[in-house]
Amino acid sequence: MFSYIPPIDDYRFLLTQVLGFDAAMAETGKEVDADLAVAVLEEAGRMCADRLHPLNRHGDEEGSRLVDGNVVTPAGFADAWRDFVAAGWASMSADPAHGGQGLPFILQLWLDEMLSATNLSFGLFPGLTRGACEAIAAHASDALKSLYLPRMVSGEWTGAMALTESGAGTDLALLKTKAMPQNDGSFVVTGQKIFISSGDHDFGGNIVHLVLARLPDAPAGVKGISLFLVPKYLPDAEGGFTIRNGMSVGALEKKMGIHAQPTCVMNYDDATGWLVGAPNKGLAAMFTMMNAERLMVGIQGLGVAGAAYQQAAGYAKERLQGRSADGARGPVAIIDHADVRRMLLNIRAFVEAGRALGGWTALQLDRAHHHPDAAERAKADALVALLTPVVKAAFTDFGFESAVQAQQVFGGHGYIREWGMEQYVRDARIAQIYEGTNGVQAMDLVGRKLAMAGGTVVEGYFDLIAADLDAAGTIDVAARTRAALNLLRTTTASLQGANMDAAGAAAVDYLRLFALVSMGWMWTRMAAAAQGEDAFHTGKRIVADFFAQRMLPQAYSLAASIAAGETSIMALNADAF
Amino acid sequence: MFSYIPPIDDYRFLLTQVLGFDAAMAETGKEVDADLAVAVLEEAGRMCADRLHPLNRHGDEEGSRLVDGNVVTPAGFADAWRDFVAAGWASMSADPAHGGQGLPFILQLWLDEMLSATNLSFGLFPGLTRGACEAIAAHASDALKSLYLPRMVSGEWTGAMALTESGAGTDLALLKTKAMPQNDGSFVVTGQKIFISSGDHDFGGNIVHLVLARLPDAPAGVKGISLFLVPKYLPDAEGGFTIRNGMSVGALEKKMGIHAQPTCVMNYDDATGWLVGAPNKGLAAMFTMMNAERLMVGIQGLGVAGAAYQQAAGYAKERLQGRSADGARGPVAIIDHADVRRMLLNIRAFVEAGRALGGWTALQLDRAHHHPDAAERAKADALVALLTPVVKAAFTDFGFESAVQAQQVFGGHGYIREWGMEQYVRDARIAQIYEGTNGVQAMDLVGRKLAMAGGTVVEGYFDLIAADLDAAGTIDVAARTRAALNLLRTTTASLQGANMDAAGAAAVDYLRLFALVSMGWMWTRMAAAAQGEDAFHTGKRIVADFFAQRMLPQAYSLAASIAAGETSIMALNADAF
Repeated sequence: MFSYIPPIDDYRFLLTQVLGFDAAMAETGKEVDADLAVAVLEEAGRMCADRLHPLNRHGDEEGSRLVDGNVVTPAGFADAWRDFVAAGWASMSADPAHGGQGLPFILQLWLDEMLSATNLSFGLFPGLTRGACEAIAAHASDALKSLYLPRMVSGEWTGAMALTESGAGTDLALLKTKAMPQNDGSFVVTGQKIFISSGDHDFGGNIVHLVLARLPDAPAGVKGISLFLVPKYLPDAEGGFTIRNGMSVGALEKKMGIHAQPTCVMNYDDATGWLVGAPNKGLAAMFTMMNAERLMVGIQGLGVAGAAYQQAAGYAKERLQGRSADGARGPVAIIDHADVRRMLLNIRAFVEAGRALGGWTALQLDRAHHHPDAAERAKADALVALLTPVVKAAFTDFGFESAVQAQQVFGGHGYIREWGMEQYVRDARIAQIYEGTNGVQAMDLVGRKLAMAGGTVVEGYFDLIAADLDAAGTIDVAARTRAALNLLRTTTASLQGANMDAAGAAAVDYLRLFALVSMGWMWTRMAAAAQGEDAFHTGKRIVADFFAQRMLPQAYSLAASIAAGETSIMALNADAF
Repeated sequence: MFSYIPPIDDYRFLLTQVLGFDAAMAETGKEVDADLAVAVLEEAGRMCADRLHPLNRHGDEEGSRLVDGNVVTPAGFADAWRDFVAAGWASMSADPAHGGQGLPFILQLWLDEMLSATNLSFGLFPGLTRGACEAIAAHASDALKSLYLPRMVSGEWTGAMALTESGAGTDLALLKTKAMPQNDGSFVVTGQKIFISSGDHDFGGNIVHLVLARLPDAPAGVKGISLFLVPKYLPDAEGGFTIRNGMSVGALEKKMGIHAQPTCVMNYDDATGWLVGAPNKGLAAMFTMMNAERLMVGIQGLGVAGAAYQQAAGYAKERLQGRSADGARGPVAIIDHADVRRMLLNIRAFVEAGRALGGWTALQLDRAHHHPDAAERAKADALVALLTPVVKAAFTDFGFESAVQAQQVFGGHGYIREWGMEQYVRDARIAQIYEGTNGVQAMDLVGRKLAMAGGTVVEGYFDLIAADLDAAGTIDVAARTRAALNLLRTTTASLQGANMDAAGAAAVDYLRLFALVSMGWMWTRMAAAAQGEDAFHTGKRIVADFFAQRMLPQAYSLAASIAAGETSIMALNADAF
């Protein structure tokens, strides 16, 4: 099978020539420079390429299985997990106060890219554990923190998020799981959850579930939801964790993809748990983990797209079919055919802009946590909030489309399992759905994020973009992005105060338009920085042109579609569908 | 599980109010009117809904298997095939001269839609048999025709097309299978073929392979390819077919989808065959079956999209999540949410226009075969040739996108196998790849079809559209389609004489633009015909508006992307990918 080449050159370029990494780190007081960052990424890349990528196909074929009520992951996964933890990758970006290494979030994000590129199913284990840690760190009592966090941060124990029920997915107001308070301060949790990623496994160690449930006196709806820490093993009198809690895997979901990932139906039968955060404030605590997860899920789309690109480009350079454009040579490698190049460039123009935009967002996250100035922290935090639904939805939509196009490059072989391309398509598909469907992300952007601080956050973001476009001078991608940005500004203004139908009708198209402009911004910054005559810089300028000329025009149809409004969408009676 | 409702009301509307079916039949001398046609479609719909749809999920789970060298299809498939044949569905549109029923091709096309909607894997058996029959009828000797055609037409025997080899897919010039002439006029065929749909099965009866191979003295390239009829069972001295030929299933391909369909690696080891058509003219004979197959494959995209729409619309009316737009009611059915409606309407606007455009093309095919005036036959034949790559590629692209959107309506449940939505996505994906990838279709359109008769065929087609738009008066969809048609005309002119790189860079976008205008044309005709105040007519007008306002604007970005040309696509060195 193919190997995976970690995109280290691209990371280095972004850190040193585009994103101003060293300056950003100096500002936030992190003692990390680009050289150290690249060294870390190289090491992470080796682990992903050499250790996790070889397990990916097999993991899909074997899948996780339920044996006597316990999850058995595919051969090699448990060993790989132990190595991953031993090398410290699980704790890379966590707070040193809880045993983490405190490396900047941009390195975590790019580790996540490489994890997703090489083994999406595996990557969910550390990803969900990290989200659970963040929620516990932000909302749990000191007692819970000291008992659970160190071993979760290290990766000795893993985490899982138990939110969805069969009747309550997007709308958590409908959830029914109950939590009864006990005299000792604990709670007895009862209910069934579905779609629980990493709900059980055979890696050893405890599995800490964060479960949304209702207290007996809770108000109806989302204001009556609380969050509970429910571990698979309860503490015993000697300080060990040996007592099996009242929770079990009811079934493994049979899914389209990510077969190696054990997605569980979880039954909590009088399980013991502890409240995380205030009663009835579970949703706020949940969003702490959800927001981190949403960025990670966006990066999953990017990771799969990058891997699929590598395989498809490699295949296109080897596969001989057809004749050259002048008819003089044949058979030629299919990379010589314009349509094959078009498909590959569509993927690459997304992946490289996504890598840059994700990196930029991650730097804002570091600023939001560590900048000495509170106003700067707040500003960065608002930008992260604005970009989070965009990264989640656009990256996973482009990611899926990329996987489909990479599969298409393989022709009939793309449809055959052994080539691995169809697995990318099946795996990438989930990222458009979980952690809030992409429609929900779009409504979050249009319904909530545009209105933040009276619209000044989004205006500030557009101003940032405009300033960089002006600074880039006369390059084509800057000019074309400026036109698209103006269209985005007009469209944004037209959605101010839109009612829910109008917002919903526009949302998905609007988010894609927003993402295209953001990618155009990143291509402008990259093209402006890549003024050398070497192959790397030349390639950047060519792909920037491709993006500007062949992908960015989507902005015009999206704006036209949004401008047409919701009338034709809402006119049909529900029973006429 | 869900049931499938055959779209009989839509067929009736198209036959009687949009496509002028009775007049077209009168012109071609077929004694079929709309009442009879609807009766046939109703019966076909019952067979698909009641007999084939219930086998679809199970067929995916069990799949076809190879047992001791023989294919075993999923439980129920062989019985269903016998019933299908006994009821005469296999021979519906075949020439009465060969035992067919001679029903018009539009009924075959819509039968194919319902077959694809209910069981894509099953539908390939009659589809490939029909293509093989057409090639034999057009090119084989009378002796071969009388020996094989009657039992293939009836469906007692099935057909398979054996073209692809591991090194020769899109580019058949590279194929290596050999055919050695024997003294008795037969040939000995030796080689390996891959991706052979319906290559073997357990339905009983003979399996007639049409195999592309090279004669010993054949010129290199595509001018040295001949077509051979190679049956699984050879005729014996008593006129029976009892002698096993030297061909065997090397393996079943493990695929992303259509698991019930046995896609074979076929080994021909000194297999006996007979030449079909002239030596070294195999490609022409192959295209006889290929063109019929390409229309059918396009309809597969339509069929899956229609089925996926029904399931998603049904789910959206039942599933309760979220609140009404005014916030007053909750939970509400998700059909109340604008974004869910948008996804459903995207599918529906394609399906209903595709059904109409497919039907229109099928009527041209009937004219091409049966019109008394040779000039009219030639004109219709040219229109079918023009539309064939559009139907194949656009319907399967929109079909796949539709399946993905229908899956999205289900949220997390869409990713779970038992709900069946992910099967639609996996099954629909193949139609974009086989019978010539959609990139190859687009190159056929731009590179060959636009140039037919000095460009007069495509101009004539645009004139037909323009006349109908003018006739429709002031309705919105007509006005918007007229603008898009003008853009298409300009774009078409810009591609006249384009070199292969420029054509290849434009092709896929151009085909989609062409399809959007064609769909706008059909929506105009449907909206103009649907002037009643009943729910059916009202619905047509609303969906026409949706198409015109929310989907057709894609035309603008496609035209802009094409206008940007091939420079940025061809600039990158092959080794820089």
